[in-house]
Amino acid sequence: MTKNQFFSGEIKVEPIGIVKNGIAQPPLVAKEDGLHRNDAGGSAMETMRGSHVQQSEIVLAPDLAGLLAGIDEYSHIVVLYWGHAVPLHGRRLATTHPAGLEKYPKQGIFATCSPARPNPVLMKVVRLLRRDGTHLFVEGLDAIDQSPVLDIKPYVADMYPQEDVRIPDWMAQIQKEFARQ
Amino acid sequence: MTKNQFFSGEIKVEPIGIVKNGIAQPPLVAKEDGLHRNDAGGSAMETMRGSHVQQSEIVLAPDLAGLLAGIDEYSHIVVLYWGHAVPLHGRRLATTHPAGLEKYPKQGIFATCSPARPNPVLMKVVRLLRRDGTHLFVEGLDAIDQSPVLDIKPYVADMYPQEDVRIPDWMAQIQKEFARQ
Repeated sequence: MTKNQFFSGEIKVEPIGIVKNGIAQPPLVAKEDGLHRNDAGGSAMETMRGSHVQQSEIVLAPDLAGLLAGIDEYSHIVVLYWGHAVPLHGRRLATTHPAGLEKYPKQGIFATCSPARPNPVLMKVVRLLRRDGTHLFVEGLDAIDQSPVLDIKPYVADMYPQEDVRIPDWMAQIQKEFARQ
Repeated sequence: MTKNQFFSGEIKVEPIGIVKNGIAQPPLVAKEDGLHRNDAGGSAMETMRGSHVQQSEIVLAPDLAGLLAGIDEYSHIVVLYWGHAVPLHGRRLATTHPAGLEKYPKQGIFATCSPARPNPVLMKVVRLLRRDGTHLFVEGLDAIDQSPVLDIKPYVADMYPQEDVRIPDWMAQIQKEFARQ
């Protein structure tokens, strides 16, 4: 339940499902001074580099089967999920070195893809490999195991501009560093 | 606060800001049998067709200024906002005629861009026209006035595949119908 300066109503978000992929540790963790690589579950860099081919299973509640009618017609879907491993202090971060890499100057959190942000509603476009009832098998999800799933949307490429799009140099560098094969 | 079969923790989402654009009525409203066009605030079709050039102001909380450092380097941003006009029964819909248009067969909600969905966390890529402190002026936001804003993310075109993307025929038709100029 939320009351703040912008909205007097209630924002009630309830998970519709969960991610299963065996990735126990997030590759980045928020400390008081920003994101740091977390090599506890293997190489954080390798986990991030491999996320575009990571296969995951999204298990939705059985009573949501009807809402998936027609989803198989899409090659890609948008997954919104909750960054449940983000600690409270991670939601208070103002800036961070992008991807926890000190070679890139600190940026405001909203200018980064940091999972630690005021509302860690995380989003990724993934390939839908197949569906078995309310189980979706996808490739490219950067969530960790047990992440609560909040929404599934169709991915329609025309809604994502490709021309006349500008990004900062550091982000272009990071994109190269984590490039798809 | 949320407890369900997938997650025993709490999902607490708090608005970080609000949309101002003078659009009082959503172009689509959820009834028990799906979405319907809402012509109360003018032509719903015109509102939807015009959304790609709609200018909006996003007013963020002043204490979030630091989180915006570097955002001006992007031509486009991703806005997550809450569909606060979606009624509770809209969150229980299973299927709808896409965009409230009966000529398109009913689809499962997750296969559509319906604002009425279990968690109405809505998302749009918009052009960032300019920033004045914590006020962002954007083009292309399809939110209505007073929509609570949940997150601002950078838009990085490379993260949105353009090749080998398949969508259903009805969605391709709708894309044509609401095409940018």
